[in-house]
Amino acid sequence: MTTTHIKTLINGEPRNVVDVTDRGLAYGDGVFETMLCVDARVPLLSRHLTRLEASCNTLGIGAPDTDQWVNDIDKLLGQGGAGGRTIVKLILTRGSGGTGYVPPSNNVATRVVQRLDFKENSSGDDLHCEVLKMQLGSNRQLAGIKHLNRLEQVLAARELSERNLQEGLLCNHHGFLIEAVSSNVFLVFGDKVVTPKLDTAGVRGVMRDYLIEKNLNAGSPIEKDYVFSSAIAQADEILLCNSVRGVRRVGRLGDRVLEQRSVYERLHKMAQNVYNEKPGIKRA
Amino acid sequence: MTTTHIKTLINGEPRNVVDVTDRGLAYGDGVFETMLCVDARVPLLSRHLTRLEASCNTLGIGAPDTDQWVNDIDKLLGQGGAGGRTIVKLILTRGSGGTGYVPPSNNVATRVVQRLDFKENSSGDDLHCEVLKMQLGSNRQLAGIKHLNRLEQVLAARELSERNLQEGLLCNHHGFLIEAVSSNVFLVFGDKVVTPKLDTAGVRGVMRDYLIEKNLNAGSPIEKDYVFSSAIAQADEILLCNSVRGVRRVGRLGDRVLEQRSVYERLHKMAQNVYNEKPGIKRA
Repeated sequence: MTTTHIKTLINGEPRNVVDVTDRGLAYGDGVFETMLCVDARVPLLSRHLTRLEASCNTLGIGAPDTDQWVNDIDKLLGQGGAGGRTIVKLILTRGSGGTGYVPPSNNVATRVVQRLDFKENSSGDDLHCEVLKMQLGSNRQLAGIKHLNRLEQVLAARELSERNLQEGLLCNHHGFLIEAVSSNVFLVFGDKVVTPKLDTAGVRGVMRDYLIEKNLNAGSPIEKDYVFSSAIAQADEILLCNSVRGVRRVGRLGDRVLEQRSVYERLHKMAQNVYNEKPGIKRA
Repeated sequence: MTTTHIKTLINGEPRNVVDVTDRGLAYGDGVFETMLCVDARVPLLSRHLTRLEASCNTLGIGAPDTDQWVNDIDKLLGQGGAGGRTIVKLILTRGSGGTGYVPPSNNVATRVVQRLDFKENSSGDDLHCEVLKMQLGSNRQLAGIKHLNRLEQVLAARELSERNLQEGLLCNHHGFLIEAVSSNVFLVFGDKVVTPKLDTAGVRGVMRDYLIEKNLNAGSPIEKDYVFSSAIAQADEILLCNSVRGVRRVGRLGDRVLEQRSVYERLHKMAQNVYNEKPGIKRA
C-alpha cells in the first residue's frame, strides 16, 4: 500500500490546482457532492449525479454528461487502493469568465473528482447535540442545493467545536428547524416521523430522499413539514442522516437523554442496506 | 506596453493557481476586496484593509499583516503598466485543512492579489434599474462582510442580464431594501438621505462608509434605517455607490424617470475627490 495513487482529477486529468480566476473560488459559484465509496463502488452514485445535474440547471451551469463523471470515478478508483470505505467528492464550478458577478453566456465548467479518506466516527452513532445559536438564511432559489456557499456551515462547525458538540441542529431565523450541520434530520413524535421542509433553506440530502422513498414504499411514510424549534424538545427520537455516515441518532439533546430508539434501528438498517445493494449505475 | 506584467501574486509569489483543497473553493471560506487603482495608487487602501481584517476577525480567519498586503500590491503595481485606472482585487481564504466544515485550529491563509482591467462604463452614470425578483437571505453573523459566498449576487446578475438592466435593487425576503447587486444604495426623500441598515444582509461598502463619514462631517448626515420596498418608488433620487465606480444614479426605475439630481451631484463630487486625495496609507 505504499504506492502513491492519484488523489484528484480535474477535467479528467491528474492535477491538484485550479485557476485563481475560477468562479468557484471567487463566488462559490458551483456545486458539490460527497459520496461514500464501498469496495470501489459508489452505491448512491446515480442519485448524486441526478441531484448535481438538477442543481446545475437551477444555477444555469452547463454540466458535464454522466459518462464523464463515471469515467473520472473509474479512473480514480480503478487504480486500486480503494478497498474498504473511502470518500469520493465531486465539485463542479461554473469555470472562469464573465464580468464580475455576471456569468459568461457559455461557461466551460471545472470538473473536480477527489478521493478523500473515510474516518470511522470514534464516538459511534449516539451523538451529543444542541440547537445551535447559528441560524440559516432563507433563500428559495438556493434552498435544497448543495452549492459551494457554505460559510454558514463553517461557522456552525466552529460553534460545534467551541461547545464540544458532535452535531448541532440549525434553524432558520424564523425559528424553524432546517437540518444539522452536515446531516438532514428526522424527528419521531409518537407514531409519526417528520423531516423539516427544505423550501427556504437547507440541503436536500441524497440519503434523506432515499429514506423518504423507501419508507413510503414500505407503507410508513415520512412527513415533510415545518417544525418549529420549540417542538424539538418534544421529539421521542431525533435521527440524523447523510450519505456518508448513514443514519445516526441524537443520544443527548442538551441535558436530556433520548432513550427510545425503535425508529432509529429501522432506518439505520435501511441505510446500511444501501451500501450492500448493487450500484444504481455501472461503475467498473 | 507589450511587456507581459505579472497579474497575480499568491502568498507573495507570481502564481495563478490555488490548491484544489483550499477552503476558499470548497466552502467560499474567505473574504475579498475589489479596489480602484489610480495611477498606481489605491486611494481607499487603508479602509479596504481595515474592513478585510475586521471580516477575518468575525470569521475567525487568521489574517496577514497590513505590510504583507502593501508589499504585494507594491510588487504588482511597481512593475509599471499600472498607469490610469486598473482594479486590484484581494482574496484571503482560510487556506486548506480542517475536517469537513470544521476549520483547522490554526489556519495558514491563502493570500491572493490580482490586477484586473478597469472597463469604463459605456452607459455612463445614469442607470436603468428595477427591484429584482431575487431576494437576499438574512444572516446576522455574515451581514456586512464581503465574503466569498456570492451565489445570490451571481443569480441576481443573471437576472440583470435576462431583464436587460444595468443594476438592480435587492430586498431581503421580508421585503426590506438592502443593496444593489454590486453597489450600496442611498435614497433621497425630500431633504433626507437614507441608506438601508445592513444588520441582516448586504455588504458594508467602503465607499458607503466613506460617504457616511464625509457627509456627517459636512453637517448633512445620512440616516441608516430600514427601508421597506414600497417606499422605494417614493424616493426623489436613488444613488448607487461602490469604491470602483464611485457614485452613480438610478436614471430610470422601471418606467419612471427620476429627474432630480442635486444630491447625486454633491455625492458624486465627494466620491471623485477620493481618487484625487493623497492615499491614506503609504504605497510606494
